[in-house]
Amino acid sequence: MDELPLVLVHVLPPFEIPFKGRLQSRFQLIDSSDSTFSPHASVLLCVGPAPVSSDTLRHLPSLQCIVGSSAGVDHIDLEECRRRGITVTNAGSSFCEDGADFAIGLLIDVLRRISAADRYVRAGLWPMKGDYPLGSKLGGKRVGIVGLGKIGSEIAKRLVAFGCRIAYNSRNKKSSVSFPYYANICNLAANSDILIICCALTKETHHLIDKDVMTALGKEGVIINVGRGGLINEKELVQCLVQGQIRGAGLDVFENEPDVPKELFELENVVLSPHKAIATLESLASLQELIVGNLEAFFSNKPLLSPINLD
Amino acid sequence: MDELPLVLVHVLPPFEIPFKGRLQSRFQLIDSSDSTFSPHASVLLCVGPAPVSSDTLRHLPSLQCIVGSSAGVDHIDLEECRRRGITVTNAGSSFCEDGADFAIGLLIDVLRRISAADRYVRAGLWPMKGDYPLGSKLGGKRVGIVGLGKIGSEIAKRLVAFGCRIAYNSRNKKSSVSFPYYANICNLAANSDILIICCALTKETHHLIDKDVMTALGKEGVIINVGRGGLINEKELVQCLVQGQIRGAGLDVFENEPDVPKELFELENVVLSPHKAIATLESLASLQELIVGNLEAFFSNKPLLSPINLD
Repeated sequence: MDELPLVLVHVLPPFEIPFKGRLQSRFQLIDSSDSTFSPHASVLLCVGPAPVSSDTLRHLPSLQCIVGSSAGVDHIDLEECRRRGITVTNAGSSFCEDGADFAIGLLIDVLRRISAADRYVRAGLWPMKGDYPLGSKLGGKRVGIVGLGKIGSEIAKRLVAFGCRIAYNSRNKKSSVSFPYYANICNLAANSDILIICCALTKETHHLIDKDVMTALGKEGVIINVGRGGLINEKELVQCLVQGQIRGAGLDVFENEPDVPKELFELENVVLSPHKAIATLESLASLQELIVGNLEAFFSNKPLLSPINLD
Repeated sequence: MDELPLVLVHVLPPFEIPFKGRLQSRFQLIDSSDSTFSPHASVLLCVGPAPVSSDTLRHLPSLQCIVGSSAGVDHIDLEECRRRGITVTNAGSSFCEDGADFAIGLLIDVLRRISAADRYVRAGLWPMKGDYPLGSKLGGKRVGIVGLGKIGSEIAKRLVAFGCRIAYNSRNKKSSVSFPYYANICNLAANSDILIICCALTKETHHLIDKDVMTALGKEGVIINVGRGGLINEKELVQCLVQGQIRGAGLDVFENEPDVPKELFELENVVLSPHKAIATLESLASLQELIVGNLEAFFSNKPLLSPINLD
């Protein structure tokens, strides 16, 4: 055991490491709450969204690397990592395709009312009440993608095949992309039928989607969020949905998960998902490969497989 | 009124002509149940799936054309139309994109459990029971398309963007297509993870998907049906779903609509839709154009816009 490299594991109780056995054959796994090893740990495996605050980091003076297991890393104090020269890895592209697939699934569901119609059929209403109201066509719609990173690019690729017109907002215009770029989120919303939110949650993007953006999107507008709950002002979103100021929403993430605003439970124009856009059985398997690969790269001084840019 | 061309309208009570006013400004609309005009009618406008049997046709000795409003025309006695030289039009490509979009929506929903997870969240179970089970990835899946017509081709186009591998079954191999062709439906099923059913319902395709096909598809297999209920042996499908002999199904059509087998109501691995795959508000608008165009073409002896091939 002593010969295996030491990996401190940082995990919140509801989360589990599904491939613990495999990791234990190569590394000595120590619970991060066990303070005996904290001074010596050079690498922290962060499973799920367990917060890595500046306080957490203060107790880990030898830390050189945080191996993360999620696409977003807003639960890690990146400022402090940058200051101390701690490298951070994320889930890389393991989840991009799943995230994009799910965004498209939510979008078709909202436009064509699949979940709502499924409830209608299961309640036995079809023979009693007759035809279910028609939905709206996806083809030809103007879709504004908020955050044209790995997931956003996969979403765009799929929507082109559906005949949608794509535009995007991001920190910077991307020279490799020909879609129209809007530096201002309200301008993007005003020129879109649908907004798909898939950017990182940072101080700058917190509550990026607020009442003003929804007003610009308009009464026929649809919002899909597969990013983070905090990207949207949830209180204003609920108000707009209840009052019909936008047409509908497909939401995989919420501000206070697992709590979802109860007002949404009764609405027919929303699809609610328990934060599962970015993972499937298959992508979790590929994430395991990536985590083991990052840990092995760290201990053998090779380049990490999925480092994030802290500059 | 007398100067307007006479159009006999054949419609089942729950259906309505949403653009009656527009038609009435150009044509004299007569209910097909009014036998006064039957001997003289040269054109029959068939709204929805109102059956046009040989008996219906016997009472219409002057009939030259049936203008249909659906993609499938299995409700019309085409054999008798062919014998009497009656031309038949269908919905053309109005519904193809919608049908394809919906098939993809149902497929993502079944694989990623969107409707089931939406019920989970709405029931308030997320905070109580924790994470919802993961679904399965769409990318890389082998999809067998049963019927590579207009809808099937649109489905294939979309699935390529998701990274799926496509194969197909149809009456004949299509020279314009490079996807692998399986003349035998069981062979296609054995080499597919997913079957999407979107062929026409004919005597030959009735109960095309039976126990044998589902057994060949296997326990991890998923079936999506946006064609007609009669394409699948529904009793055997229900049995396979209940007993877990296939993974799941997304069903827009059923054998005895609007009656849906009650055994399906309790299953978490199915998505049930009240026959609405092929229409949206937008596609209905384009269908109206097509119907008016077909009627005007008929009365001015011009080529019909969407005749079906009766040979």
